[in-house]
Amino acid sequence: MECIELSLQDGQSYPICIERGLLSNCGAWLSERFSPCKIMLVTDENVAPLYMETVKNSLVSAGFTVQTHIVAAGEPSKSIGVLGGLLEAMADARLTRTDLAVSLGGGIVGDLTGFAAGCYLRGIRFVQMPTTLLAAVDASVGGKTAVNLPQGKNLAGLFHQPSAVLCDPDAMKTLTDICIADGAAEAIKTGILGDTSLFEIYESKDPSEHLTEIIAKSVAYKSKIVMEDPTEKSVRKLLNLGHTVGHAIEIASRFDISHGHAVAIGTAVMTRAAKKSGIIKNCDAERILQTLVRNHLPIDCPYSAKQLTDIAQTDKKSENTSITVIIPEQIGKCCMEKIELSALEALISDGMEGQE
Amino acid sequence: MECIELSLQDGQSYPICIERGLLSNCGAWLSERFSPCKIMLVTDENVAPLYMETVKNSLVSAGFTVQTHIVAAGEPSKSIGVLGGLLEAMADARLTRTDLAVSLGGGIVGDLTGFAAGCYLRGIRFVQMPTTLLAAVDASVGGKTAVNLPQGKNLAGLFHQPSAVLCDPDAMKTLTDICIADGAAEAIKTGILGDTSLFEIYESKDPSEHLTEIIAKSVAYKSKIVMEDPTEKSVRKLLNLGHTVGHAIEIASRFDISHGHAVAIGTAVMTRAAKKSGIIKNCDAERILQTLVRNHLPIDCPYSAKQLTDIAQTDKKSENTSITVIIPEQIGKCCMEKIELSALEALISDGMEGQE
Repeated sequence: MECIELSLQDGQSYPICIERGLLSNCGAWLSERFSPCKIMLVTDENVAPLYMETVKNSLVSAGFTVQTHIVAAGEPSKSIGVLGGLLEAMADARLTRTDLAVSLGGGIVGDLTGFAAGCYLRGIRFVQMPTTLLAAVDASVGGKTAVNLPQGKNLAGLFHQPSAVLCDPDAMKTLTDICIADGAAEAIKTGILGDTSLFEIYESKDPSEHLTEIIAKSVAYKSKIVMEDPTEKSVRKLLNLGHTVGHAIEIASRFDISHGHAVAIGTAVMTRAAKKSGIIKNCDAERILQTLVRNHLPIDCPYSAKQLTDIAQTDKKSENTSITVIIPEQIGKCCMEKIELSALEALISDGMEGQE
Repeated sequence: MECIELSLQDGQSYPICIERGLLSNCGAWLSERFSPCKIMLVTDENVAPLYMETVKNSLVSAGFTVQTHIVAAGEPSKSIGVLGGLLEAMADARLTRTDLAVSLGGGIVGDLTGFAAGCYLRGIRFVQMPTTLLAAVDASVGGKTAVNLPQGKNLAGLFHQPSAVLCDPDAMKTLTDICIADGAAEAIKTGILGDTSLFEIYESKDPSEHLTEIIAKSVAYKSKIVMEDPTEKSVRKLLNLGHTVGHAIEIASRFDISHGHAVAIGTAVMTRAAKKSGIIKNCDAERILQTLVRNHLPIDCPYSAKQLTDIAQTDKKSENTSITVIIPEQIGKCCMEKIELSALEALISDGMEGQE
């Protein structure tokens, strides 16, 4: 088992464990670390028929009392209304402060469950079991939880760290190609930020044969950044490479374009903008764009710079009139730049030049 | 100006300031501590016609940009739905992480605004301006925020500390007698817990002539406890004297019985139970009951011990099968006792003996 211990500044820590078959063995694993208690197991309509009974049986066999709560699959479940429904389910199950919430699913289920766990009784523990590559490499680290508001993505949420993350690469066998590409977008982003060997798996190998390695490398990099800056005051902003544009694309498309695909376009936009201003060498920029395409990801933006800028102004990363953008310098290194909101449109415009 | 600096364990601190006329001067006060920014001023339909324009004008004169959000008066505004509406108003106003939420009103407005400020963009700063005695002596200290669920009071919320609390005793002149009694219940409770001189104001003086002193003494005691135990792992549980029974009474009455009145009954129940078991002397128990009555508070419970116990089982203070109750030992001293939920009914029953 690959196990990465993530230490936080306040002395807390939690393990992120990666092992094939872990979903069937999760009960035994958890019972070594948690006393018998009630568990609210939260999943969605896609994941429930695939893995819910496996996980529930494993938990019950290990002595836990399990209640399940199934939400609709997809982004609309990240809403205040669905959050309220989950909180009521927790209250109906009479969960107390010593009980546990478990999320089984992708980032949406994880974000929703983490938020509910963070505010039910002003905070109970939760365990994440990511079943998508995107959730495994990205959402499982850092303690960010959120729901969307009509005005934008992730506008309401909490920092609430999980007590453990259990990741079973076998769960990813049932993912669609689009879902695999979504996870690839975040892993490639991580490679560009700080891990050349991770980038190279996507550049020249078959990623499906290297899932454990990909997850472990992604988690290790993100952990390092999150440990340094748990509440995103400084270096953690790096992780937003491609995300300012990406979030705006998701909203403009009314979530027809998925998170990973939008981040891929956002990363491509920032790469082209960096190339134009001479910050990144042409050959490195080309490697990034080609690696995105090789992994079935889009690099051309279907919206105008003006449209995206208007949306980004509501984005939570803006501070008054300025916004921090992340710019690739080479493969394995990026920089942060604080720019005026008024300069954002020109930057995005630069990043769209030379699109097909 | 009475100003108490409340230091928290993590190095944060915030001032609680008490001064007559402070609502009209709040802008100048805040502008010394906060850079010009957007403010979402939240209040309710009762308070808005009395003080909203005064506060807004003071803030605008001091250079802040002010948006207002008015919710319905009363407990139903402490709901997930109203929270969602406030979060959307914050997003519509494009508040960023450096902006500010201000609550102007009683505990309900404060709890709601604090929760919204704690999760909007994963946390922005907020300032409380309590306009009821209850909010001034109780809700303004400790950083507890919450909304209710259909299953019980305060079941969803956060610990989110205010950046400042501004308290104007003149605002309390417009309170109804019932509201004044509500605040008295919490202040008397604080006296029983640890401040004999505060108790004695309610026992033998005219409290309306001692408002600044009452607020300052209440805040000082609660601050001391909260500094010692910000997240209610130990001594902070003392503050729940009368609250297990009190919360259950509020729910049983569908909130017809107000918080303070319910806490008064809860305190009376625990006092009689302590008297029966010999923990408190008869004369001290009588002083408590008579002081509650002198301040127009009820001491007799209109529900059965069985009804209240059933409701208390959903109360967030229960840990699995046990619950921590607070028992008066003398005026100025109480103790905590962890009892089985199964023993709670007998305890409440004891506390109802000798009622009129």
